[in-house]
Amino acid sequence: MAIKNADRNYIEKVFEEAYQKGLAVTSQGHKADYIPELAKADENAFGICAMDKNGEFVGIGDIDTRFSMQSISKVLTLSAAIEMMGFDEVFSNVMFEPSGDGFNSIVKLDTVSNLPYNPMINAGAIQIASMLADNVSFDNLLDFAREFCHDSKIELNEPVYRSECETGDRNRAIAYLLKSKGVLKADIEKTCDLYFKMCSLNVTARSLAGMGLIISNDGVNPFTEKRYISHENVRTLKSIMFSCGMYDRSGEFSVKVGVPAKSGVGGGIVCAARGPLGIGIYGPALDHKGNSIAGVAAMEHISGSLNLHIFD
Amino acid sequence: MAIKNADRNYIEKVFEEAYQKGLAVTSQGHKADYIPELAKADENAFGICAMDKNGEFVGIGDIDTRFSMQSISKVLTLSAAIEMMGFDEVFSNVMFEPSGDGFNSIVKLDTVSNLPYNPMINAGAIQIASMLADNVSFDNLLDFAREFCHDSKIELNEPVYRSECETGDRNRAIAYLLKSKGVLKADIEKTCDLYFKMCSLNVTARSLAGMGLIISNDGVNPFTEKRYISHENVRTLKSIMFSCGMYDRSGEFSVKVGVPAKSGVGGGIVCAARGPLGIGIYGPALDHKGNSIAGVAAMEHISGSLNLHIFD
Amino acid sequence: MAIKNADRNYIEKVFEEAYQKGLAVTSQGHKADYIPELAKADENAFGICAMDKNGEFVGIGDIDTRFSMQSISKVLTLSAAIEMMGFDEVFSNVMFEPSGDGFNSIVKLDTVSNLPYNPMINAGAIQIASMLADNVSFDNLLDFAREFCHDSKIELNEPVYRSECETGDRNRAIAYLLKSKGVLKADIEKTCDLYFKMCSLNVTARSLAGMGLIISNDGVNPFTEKRYISHENVRTLKSIMFSCGMYDRSGEFSVKVGVPAKSGVGGGIVCAARGPLGIGIYGPALDHKGNSIAGVAAMEHISGSLNLHIFD
Amino acid sequence: MAIKNADRNYIEKVFEEAYQKGLAVTSQGHKADYIPELAKADENAFGICAMDKNGEFVGIGDIDTRFSMQSISKVLTLSAAIEMMGFDEVFSNVMFEPSGDGFNSIVKLDTVSNLPYNPMINAGAIQIASMLADNVSFDNLLDFAREFCHDSKIELNEPVYRSECETGDRNRAIAYLLKSKGVLKADIEKTCDLYFKMCSLNVTARSLAGMGLIISNDGVNPFTEKRYISHENVRTLKSIMFSCGMYDRSGEFSVKVGVPAKSGVGGGIVCAARGPLGIGIYGPALDHKGNSIAGVAAMEHISGSLNLHIFD
Repeated sequence: MAIKNADRNYIEKVFEEAYQKGLAVTSQGHKADYIPELAKADENAFGICAMDKNGEFVGIGDIDTRFSMQSISKVLTLSAAIEMMGFDEVFSNVMFEPSGDGFNSIVKLDTVSNLPYNPMINAGAIQIASMLADNVSFDNLLDFAREFCHDSKIELNEPVYRSECETGDRNRAIAYLLKSKGVLKADIEKTCDLYFKMCSLNVTARSLAGMGLIISNDGVNPFTEKRYISHENVRTLKSIMFSCGMYDRSGEFSVKVGVPAKSGVGGGIVCAARGPLGIGIYGPALDHKGNSIAGVAAMEHISGSLNLHIFD
Repeated sequence: MAIKNADRNYIEKVFEEAYQKGLAVTSQGHKADYIPELAKADENAFGICAMDKNGEFVGIGDIDTRFSMQSISKVLTLSAAIEMMGFDEVFSNVMFEPSGDGFNSIVKLDTVSNLPYNPMINAGAIQIASMLADNVSFDNLLDFAREFCHDSKIELNEPVYRSECETGDRNRAIAYLLKSKGVLKADIEKTCDLYFKMCSLNVTARSLAGMGLIISNDGVNPFTEKRYISHENVRTLKSIMFSCGMYDRSGEFSVKVGVPAKSGVGGGIVCAARGPLGIGIYGPALDHKGNSIAGVAAMEHISGSLNLHIFD
Repeated sequence: MAIKNADRNYIEKVFEEAYQKGLAVTSQGHKADYIPELAKADENAFGICAMDKNGEFVGIGDIDTRFSMQSISKVLTLSAAIEMMGFDEVFSNVMFEPSGDGFNSIVKLDTVSNLPYNPMINAGAIQIASMLADNVSFDNLLDFAREFCHDSKIELNEPVYRSECETGDRNRAIAYLLKSKGVLKADIEKTCDLYFKMCSLNVTARSLAGMGLIISNDGVNPFTEKRYISHENVRTLKSIMFSCGMYDRSGEFSVKVGVPAKSGVGGGIVCAARGPLGIGIYGPALDHKGNSIAGVAAMEHISGSLNLHIFD
Repeated sequence: MAIKNADRNYIEKVFEEAYQKGLAVTSQGHKADYIPELAKADENAFGICAMDKNGEFVGIGDIDTRFSMQSISKVLTLSAAIEMMGFDEVFSNVMFEPSGDGFNSIVKLDTVSNLPYNPMINAGAIQIASMLADNVSFDNLLDFAREFCHDSKIELNEPVYRSECETGDRNRAIAYLLKSKGVLKADIEKTCDLYFKMCSLNVTARSLAGMGLIISNDGVNPFTEKRYISHENVRTLKSIMFSCGMYDRSGEFSVKVGVPAKSGVGGGIVCAARGPLGIGIYGPALDHKGNSIAGVAAMEHISGSLNLHIFD
């Protein structure tokens, strides 16, 4: 399923069509506004980037515009945590069940479960951040992000970070609730600070294509052959992305697109498709669940046309 | 309904019977254990104190044992807030509806309402504390508590206070959630600190009888004739205590006892009965809702025998 | 607190003012539309009727317009059930706690409690209906309603009844959920049929004043001296009406009005005020909780002006 | 991934080990008891059957014991509905999101969504049944089940069916709630009757292996080459089974096993693994989520040893 020279023309045509399909629905979406900095994005921006293990890539539109990772960082922190601490340690502190609730919901923690439902919702990612906070510095994670995305220019977006800190009280509420249950054991401010910083990493659609390629390529950078995640852990990561990666539209995405993916309210989507093929998308106009509306439309076309659905 | 000399014997007999009825069920209750300091209480302790406006009183059992007010302080802080800021200001920040949920529940705040349901649950009292925190010092409130309870010896129970601070993460979660909604505007730690301190005030059953007497006597200390709460505000306070004062057993208490009351997980109950008559109870063995199990049983007998039910 | 000749002029003035205050807010309310028949009401209709035990009464506006009782019938069925089966039997099948949820909510039954929270929400009234269904005929209850309201002309409103039957699937869902828990034991259709019929009884503001007068007068018709409810059961009834009678605005009504009352989405409110004084209201424009918007405004004025608040 | 002769020995060894691993945990599970008939099962029974497209199969233990399909029938009815009515019609009446709640939960329908979350929970399957009820007879569906499972002996288990009817009030509650929202339009009893009958079909582990084989083989019976489900619909079916098939343990199963599957409280599991390979399991001792405890343990071993995880 690699992007072969032979069908280069077809592939480019598919991506071009996907780009047009995405553009066509952009006006139906809306920028995130709950963090003031996010409301500054250009609502019409849209870019798609794909990269295979031969280094060939397709790029259309705003693929080098910087934006904050937001929830896509949950993939990075889960990857780091599971590699550092192992499957058993991580998953005795967070479950792997889709929650059926919004990404920042508290209700299940208050009523049915001490453990966060999965690492792709805020509660789970905050729990993961708390476990990382005592073991790794932000700088280490920044380096990890840069390597994982083949993008040495990833930096902390300071205004977004400050905006997250200033408006992150719901996340602090989640952290304190987890602490009250004895699940979260680290310092709250340190935990939230790391969580906010990771959400504020500035990436591009191109960086996300690189990130998706490594996940797609069994955790290995195909150009350097350096392994970042073990085979078993990549399998776990893909399974969780598949079930829980697209907020509470994950089920629909798994049916219609069928590719492990993760979106963020900054407008990014990272996809780890068969091939191996990494796809990164930037489109800050969101559907009402928090996913790039153009990105979802584009991915449906790409997956259908290139047979990327895991059950194809 | 004042305790008249004429029926002094009958009244003493009723209280004695109530005391025995309370003792008989004490072993069915359990001490609060979610704050370590509370678990140190003597589970068999029990005391009832009643005081009328002539200064006559009945006291049986452990009426001078000190214990922390816990949720009974919610009556003090609501009284202070409503007097200082007025009805409209207070009740544009908190509702007056029974919640149907546990006292420390978060679920309605997360799903159906930005405002806390009422000032007798943690969310509401924390909101009230946030409004007080910027306007009044703890020392002022301590003075208010002492006067309101006719008890100059009320002090901060330091071990309970430290225990509250150390284990109060659920309350901090509530505070942050309120802040995330723009409802709570004060500093969180200052708010929680005041809330924890008020919960940690050391009272006795006798102090609570004094407090109940003032509420019962239309907000006026009958001995000094000093008014602490306006008539309109006392009416509001009694209505809320009646509907929401006994955790999620408030409905049952309103049917079976029918007296405005407030309980705390420290084992205290304050009742503002007709007469005017103040009744204070200490019994740290709690029912599964958080009310003194002996206290509820005793009050049912007292109310029935002395016709204290508001609908009698 | 009876309406005495002496202050007849003042009382009439208060009611007239209350009527004007009610009229002034009528346009802010909306007719119930979830049952098609209710949407046929005249949204501007409004009437207030009060009756004391001397038979004197005040009546302003549409006091003889017929409308369906809807939830006000919950007072009748609870009264009938508690008289026939006794307190213990009734309250081992339904609780007396305010629910904090909408009147037709299912969520607490699905998650935290097998028993309905109280007899004033649909779940509780359906459970009461199921207990009555095997013991009493609709005709008996119709006779009871006529006597209780001093209104021999109360009839089943056939179009409303058919409308209830046709659109009552949420109530059937509640009934089946109660049956699945082993709480509701009677036949479902028989239960729902009785429940729907009772909701469809046609009354007037005048009938409700009569009903309120009996409740206010300790369960006794002051003109015939016939007792309909025992003293203990009236006390229970008033307590539950006070805490739970005005849907999820009951807390606010208890604070601002302070009179046991029950509203229905047909636009009626029955109040059992001190005096004894019965007040019946008809105003089909509802607030967003389901209470007559004009009726609530009027009652606030009447209670404040005539000192009817139970904590006054 | 077909079971080739070459590694026949290895495959038999893997299944034998899986069987032993399943047996070892059987005593930790418990039979379903909410339907009396299910409580009659032999709690120690356990069988695994696998079938590839060459007709070769592995069978160990109780592979010919009859038991009721229960929720596994949700796969049959979804397949039938999607084939008859098409994707758009089906999924405008039910979503494809994991719910995060128990299979028979009502809470999300009452609070956040008019449509059932997915067709693998009771609400969704009842909605599907309502759509089938007007278009197809039970006999047609029985024929479909027999063909789909390569098992002409599938019959209605009459005692289970009667038991379902008698105790199915929670399901009727769900049906009425759906009807009250205008989502379910068919007759309730007809709908529930079809739903109960489908749950009561008697299958064996061998039948389920046959069923899994067709799903695994792109909807085509490999022996007759008859297609039962279109390619697109099989893809949808597998995606939903992957995300939602194992009750609220679906996330864990997707991570640890990674095979589209569906379990039933009768103790059955159907798996549609790569190969194509169909696996059927019978083990009535359930984990606390409702899945065969031995079956889950066995599948984890089989998937790991034969590389069946979709992300391997």
